[in-house]
Amino acid sequence: MDKISTFVLKILINMEIKAFQDYYPDDFNQCYGCGGLNEHGHQIKSFWEGDKAIAEFEPKPYHTSLPGYVYGGLIASLIDCHSTGTAAAALYKKEGRPMDSTPPFRCVTASLHVDYLRPTPLDGKLKLEATVKNIDGKRVNILVELFWGGKLCAKGEVVAVAVGEKWLSRWISNSDESLI
Amino acid sequence: MDKISTFVLKILINMEIKAFQDYYPDDFNQCYGCGGLNEHGHQIKSFWEGDKAIAEFEPKPYHTSLPGYVYGGLIASLIDCHSTGTAAAALYKKEGRPMDSTPPFRCVTASLHVDYLRPTPLDGKLKLEATVKNIDGKRVNILVELFWGGKLCAKGEVVAVAVGEKWLSRWISNSDESLI
Repeated sequence: MDKISTFVLKILINMEIKAFQDYYPDDFNQCYGCGGLNEHGHQIKSFWEGDKAIAEFEPKPYHTSLPGYVYGGLIASLIDCHSTGTAAAALYKKEGRPMDSTPPFRCVTASLHVDYLRPTPLDGKLKLEATVKNIDGKRVNILVELFWGGKLCAKGEVVAVAVGEKWLSRWISNSDESLI
Repeated sequence: MDKISTFVLKILINMEIKAFQDYYPDDFNQCYGCGGLNEHGHQIKSFWEGDKAIAEFEPKPYHTSLPGYVYGGLIASLIDCHSTGTAAAALYKKEGRPMDSTPPFRCVTASLHVDYLRPTPLDGKLKLEATVKNIDGKRVNILVELFWGGKLCAKGEVVAVAVGEKWLSRWISNSDESLI
């Protein structure tokens, strides 16, 4: 192998595919659902797969509802956090700039709707597929389908709102402010 | 104090006000959100207060979203589990029988909608107030308001469905069956 090929190979080996959440600024990367810096939390990771955003998650045995099935709150949490991550990624994409550029996009949830279509078994991985339905300014509508073993178990609709760096600092100093 | 008064006093002292969830049969009391037997979970407790059902919950510091605020998934989980508990209690009430009578009512969620009205601070207790909006057979519509420091932070609407003992066992042996 010549020197150039070895050099390219080294670059490829060291490249890692970063999840949307890996681009969150450290100060805003503590979320229980998706923050990479929350050691107690779910730390979900979302990636583009074509036009859809996907995430996988393996529930713990204690994430149970009725025996053997996932509790609804976990499903709601996964849909929520996968959507806010996807909304941020979609906004960067729309602006045609990379996710490590500034100002950063960080989204919060204005509303969440989940239809539980069938009981979701507790053993094995859940797969979430998100589709961006609409972007209106900093407001993003996301549809999420949650699968277990290829079967559709739940559907979610989320309205996520991006908060800019400036707005974030203002909001943090004023908990009374309404989000919507 | 005579013997009878002492006897009554002892009964009163030993009486405890049981939460809706304390009546769940042990086999179905493992839910991460509301199961009293899930040592990892939230173990929320719901009680009647007049016509409303109330619950209180104190988030842990790691239940964070953006710094200092509760993550949306926890709010969704609390609304969900407080609603299924309230739905079961409402069904017993409608039938005019105590919660420790049989057959037991245990509800699952068909749909959940949450509007996040303002950021919910992470310090201190959250209070949930549930109102039973409608009962149609074993289908119960619940409205939940979530307060922090007296301020309304989120509103939830839940459709909960009661599953009888017989149906529960059938469902547990057949994960393919749709809930709705």
